[in-house]
Amino acid sequence: MAGIGIVGAGTAGLHLGLLLRQHDIPVTIYSDRTAEQLGSGRMLNSVAHHHATVEREQALGVDHWDIEEYRYFGHNHYITGGPQPLVFPGVFTAPSRAIDYRIYLPRLLEDFVARGGEFEVRPVQAADVVKLSERHDLVVIASGRSGLNAMFSRRADKSPFDTPQRRLCVGLYEGVAPSEPKRVTLNVAAGNGELLEIPMYSSAGHVTALLFENVPGGELEMLADLSYEEDPAGFEKTILESARQFYPATFERIDTAKFRLTSPLDLLQGAIVPTVREDYTKLPNGRYAVALGDAHVVVDPVVGQGGNCASYSAWELGHVIIEDPNFDERFCQKVADRRRDRVHATADWTNLMVGGPPPEHLLRMFVAMATNQEIADEFTENFSYPDRQWDILATPERVNNYLARKGVGVPG
Amino acid sequence: MAGIGIVGAGTAGLHLGLLLRQHDIPVTIYSDRTAEQLGSGRMLNSVAHHHATVEREQALGVDHWDIEEYRYFGHNHYITGGPQPLVFPGVFTAPSRAIDYRIYLPRLLEDFVARGGEFEVRPVQAADVVKLSERHDLVVIASGRSGLNAMFSRRADKSPFDTPQRRLCVGLYEGVAPSEPKRVTLNVAAGNGELLEIPMYSSAGHVTALLFENVPGGELEMLADLSYEEDPAGFEKTILESARQFYPATFERIDTAKFRLTSPLDLLQGAIVPTVREDYTKLPNGRYAVALGDAHVVVDPVVGQGGNCASYSAWELGHVIIEDPNFDERFCQKVADRRRDRVHATADWTNLMVGGPPPEHLLRMFVAMATNQEIADEFTENFSYPDRQWDILATPERVNNYLARKGVGVPG
Repeated sequence: MAGIGIVGAGTAGLHLGLLLRQHDIPVTIYSDRTAEQLGSGRMLNSVAHHHATVEREQALGVDHWDIEEYRYFGHNHYITGGPQPLVFPGVFTAPSRAIDYRIYLPRLLEDFVARGGEFEVRPVQAADVVKLSERHDLVVIASGRSGLNAMFSRRADKSPFDTPQRRLCVGLYEGVAPSEPKRVTLNVAAGNGELLEIPMYSSAGHVTALLFENVPGGELEMLADLSYEEDPAGFEKTILESARQFYPATFERIDTAKFRLTSPLDLLQGAIVPTVREDYTKLPNGRYAVALGDAHVVVDPVVGQGGNCASYSAWELGHVIIEDPNFDERFCQKVADRRRDRVHATADWTNLMVGGPPPEHLLRMFVAMATNQEIADEFTENFSYPDRQWDILATPERVNNYLARKGVGVPG
Repeated sequence: MAGIGIVGAGTAGLHLGLLLRQHDIPVTIYSDRTAEQLGSGRMLNSVAHHHATVEREQALGVDHWDIEEYRYFGHNHYITGGPQPLVFPGVFTAPSRAIDYRIYLPRLLEDFVARGGEFEVRPVQAADVVKLSERHDLVVIASGRSGLNAMFSRRADKSPFDTPQRRLCVGLYEGVAPSEPKRVTLNVAAGNGELLEIPMYSSAGHVTALLFENVPGGELEMLADLSYEEDPAGFEKTILESARQFYPATFERIDTAKFRLTSPLDLLQGAIVPTVREDYTKLPNGRYAVALGDAHVVVDPVVGQGGNCASYSAWELGHVIIEDPNFDERFCQKVADRRRDRVHATADWTNLMVGGPPPEHLLRMFVAMATNQEIADEFTENFSYPDRQWDILATPERVNNYLARKGVGVPG
């Protein structure tokens, strides 16, 4: 067959392309950047791959980073703002791993090409997709760039926000000693936001990503606008001061003398509007294009789900392609059915974490996690299974039922 | 918990109830008939259980009828009306089995009660369901009787017909020698309908169900109205004459001297309007009721899918209950997502078989089956997997793609 055309060389496009190549299906990936451009550009994100994703990487034969060396094994939680601070760990059943995407993506692209995948560097815009659809049996849009995401209608029922819920400032830093044992540290400063401290491997070696998630209007919102270029030392000083004041659990492991951004490009500032889009669209020529990754769903990075969700979604799409290569509306509906629960749960759960003040039932979960290790571990494990997380968190009744099953009383 | 209430003691309700009992979940089944009434009444249908259903029976521990003795292993096809008759067999990978439901259902009900299930004989109408919903964590409506199906809205997008597409006359007969090897024989008389000859086990022993599927306005429609009570001998004579004239492949195995209906109650005449309904409804008290079996989907019996679909759907619903016992809308949507593809495919495929003159692509499949055993076997095997059948048959393009993959040329 003329094979599958994938627009976008992120985790979504690459995991899909690699899976299809394992089944000898012709694939072309289109990207507006070469591997070199991707690898040498600005930091792309600070995503960690949880073990459900690592298992897919193993199955795809792209598990290049020895998990023993690169892993971390859970989350430390420091939640302030309630009557007393909540401090507790949560551990996974299997480790997570965070590799800078400027290393990760070019390496997987190399694998993809070595395994017979075609890679074409060319900008693709929405207007080009009809023509692409005639070169391929199916076109998958796995990039939200260049307005491609607008090909797929926004689902108002799953997109509750019109504006960003956090303004972001994420960078890679030296001078932060990892926690012992090595974990991600989730700091919550109620009303102001969160700091995620993530052990990450980058071209500078084992470094630390500090992702400041800043509530609009809160005291740390200015971090999203603070210029590193204009005053590097002042920038680092403000980051340090913000950590000291709001996120002491991370700050206490910082050696202020050694603290520095690893490179001017290792910094990303901005914000996203969490958005869920339709699974597919019918093109003017009657063919269908399927949305994947950022073209389909964009979530705030607060619980690190974007890349994992893209990988999961690519996996489901790929298996439908392998099982039923008839690219009509029935095919598209199958794709939508297969991935709906986990993908929508990813968006719903993330939106619960960032949408305004935390509701009472989420606070109840945090309190339970602080006193019941089994609950904290399950919450942490469910970073691999957002659908199971949402089974617990979707409604106050679900939280009550869950806590009752765990033997935790529900307030009268 | 207060457990699950199931209205209806058919295959849907019993398979669900038995599955939940295996997980120690309290279950009450409500029926308007006692086991004795069910077992001694009029014939209920002529459904065979295909091997996907037999496997569920094995898992449920209700595989009481030795498959070696009761099995049949495929379909004979005799299709007339085209330029030449098409005659070919198709075989399963594992056998099917047809047990008279007046034996089958009471036996499973006995198992259900022996395993701690509650059984209450009482009529339930739609108006009673709110009250039932307060006695149970969840109410499942697994009966289309007493207007219960009307609790769930008809889905116009999946219910293309307003009237029956076949008028039915099905009875159990002695005097029909089974085919050798023992198979179901599917006779098609284009324009008039079909005769399904099914080896079945009933209280009279190993007998034969003859299911006349009669096109409204066709020459055999009168069979649906023919009175056995008024003139038993005349009835049997008309049946024989109809078989002789329209369905010779079955007729030639009839010993006309021994041919007779096994009992006046072993006859069912009527018709159904194929209908797909919504998966669930919200009751006035805010609780949800889930549709199962006939309350959810009614299909013409032409490809024998109703009971199998009910069992499949019970299986999926049961596993969602076991995994996520929170009976809110999220739960209901999960149930809908899990079973949608196969259940809707069952309806779509069945509707293709009975909806007006067969379309050209269906005829093309029949011709291919007559000359390619692999295709005939796959079509036959897919009586266990209607979703896979529909992957092949859903559109003319899908049939062409399928036949091309099998090396069968496409005209033009």
